[in-house]
Amino acid sequence: MQPERLAVYQQRVEQHLQQYIDSRTVTDQRLLSAMSYSLLLGGKRVRPFLVYSCGTLLGASLHDLDGPAAALEALHSYSLIHDDLPAMDNDDLRRGKPTCHKAFDEATAILAGDALQTLAFEILSAHPYQQVDSRNIVKMLQQLSQAAGYGGMCGGQAIDLAQTNQHTSLAQLEQMHRLKTGALIECAVHLAWLCSNRQNIAERDALVQFAQALGLAFQVQDDILDIESDTSTLGKPQGSDTKANKSTYPALLGLDNAKAKAQQLYQDALNALARLPYNTDELRAFAQYIIERRF
Amino acid sequence: MQPERLAVYQQRVEQHLQQYIDSRTVTDQRLLSAMSYSLLLGGKRVRPFLVYSCGTLLGASLHDLDGPAAALEALHSYSLIHDDLPAMDNDDLRRGKPTCHKAFDEATAILAGDALQTLAFEILSAHPYQQVDSRNIVKMLQQLSQAAGYGGMCGGQAIDLAQTNQHTSLAQLEQMHRLKTGALIECAVHLAWLCSNRQNIAERDALVQFAQALGLAFQVQDDILDIESDTSTLGKPQGSDTKANKSTYPALLGLDNAKAKAQQLYQDALNALARLPYNTDELRAFAQYIIERRF
Repeated sequence: MQPERLAVYQQRVEQHLQQYIDSRTVTDQRLLSAMSYSLLLGGKRVRPFLVYSCGTLLGASLHDLDGPAAALEALHSYSLIHDDLPAMDNDDLRRGKPTCHKAFDEATAILAGDALQTLAFEILSAHPYQQVDSRNIVKMLQQLSQAAGYGGMCGGQAIDLAQTNQHTSLAQLEQMHRLKTGALIECAVHLAWLCSNRQNIAERDALVQFAQALGLAFQVQDDILDIESDTSTLGKPQGSDTKANKSTYPALLGLDNAKAKAQQLYQDALNALARLPYNTDELRAFAQYIIERRF
Repeated sequence: MQPERLAVYQQRVEQHLQQYIDSRTVTDQRLLSAMSYSLLLGGKRVRPFLVYSCGTLLGASLHDLDGPAAALEALHSYSLIHDDLPAMDNDDLRRGKPTCHKAFDEATAILAGDALQTLAFEILSAHPYQQVDSRNIVKMLQQLSQAAGYGGMCGGQAIDLAQTNQHTSLAQLEQMHRLKTGALIECAVHLAWLCSNRQNIAERDALVQFAQALGLAFQVQDDILDIESDTSTLGKPQGSDTKANKSTYPALLGLDNAKAKAQQLYQDALNALARLPYNTDELRAFAQYIIERRF
């Protein structure tokens, strides 16, 4: 079952992203349509949820959190468009709909991804924050760029491509996931913390450890679903990892051990939350949702 | 003849970019090599020159200007990699060398472009400024994202693709150039101004008008060189605009009128500089270099 506020936060970030699209002066309609298509195609909105949930826990306002929540989703959205391209994973389906280069064309998809990455930095820097100090805005921009670039998400995608058709160790698989998806998930709680103007490093570190365990649990569960779910539930072809000859947790550990690994990471996430002096029910429910989801 | 300090500034920004590449912890060597290859392939370094020259004019330190100079060049470099891709302009040659996707592969070139865009924002936000206020750093990040994104460079590239094989008016051609290359050139003087902590809007506006005229003059001259120069001097195939069926100033105006247009823009640039109470010899020499260059 999904946590109560997931739909609320999903709707909130989508409204905010829609406003950004609507506020653009039209230069090229096709490019704007492609950006909007990919940005508003749905999705779990994991990163915005973490920004809103961790941020409100620490006392930040929803208004201020709109900036990092929307920025992270724009950045995530760009990465999906480029990962799906023919030269990359060559995927036709995303969230049950044609991928961006299928719905439009390859050049438009490359540009839409490029423009959505830029939009992420525009949103994060130009959001009308009410209570966030300029120094913390600069720190948020540092965090986002470090998480998204060569030392984070882009580097992870490069490793993912290099590992395809190769024998991979568990440590290599884990490093790839930590960079490719973990870096942005961890970034979500960093941005929430910076938005709150808190100074307590121990609290930040507990949230970061929660995010790290959650991010990896998400990937292990993804690998399990690629085997156990079906195409219509997933919104993308079931068995695509195996077909693409990608390393997965079940392939390296066996299905049962992969499930045990997911449970262990879930426990690690809860243990990290237990160190915080706040009511973390919402984040606990979210971790449970991530581990029990069927798509 | 090129202005005296062009080589000095070229060397300065290249050293700075090299340091950024060298300081990366290696995640994927192939991706890092592709980033380094494109970033350090040479080039006129027009944007860094404008940052350094305008910035020192206004009293900013070279140290502080290293941030925006390197960030703009990383961003420009990403745009060249993606523009050259098979799905875009499909170019094999850039600055006399194989384009990134020819020297490496398409997936690596897409990722290298992506990571260089992110690097631009990382450099601009994480540079150890000595005299730039945090509020101005945030404003620099706003400027760069607005110039690079849908309302600027990316939008311009989309219009360029849409205009290929189409009849284009002079106004449409000009709008395309103003977005595709003009926005970043204009951004260079904005960033220099913000780095200097000056408050005089009239001075900023004079520099912006100089940059706008210079940026367009650069494009008109590019179109003229595509007809009058040769492949080995250009470092890319002569006649490629005509071959790609792209609109150009000579095609719309005739060669003589295109040359007169370039001269007019050069005069506009000098007139804008004349409104500034500084010694603008270096910027005047640069404008002359842009209009007289053979490649």
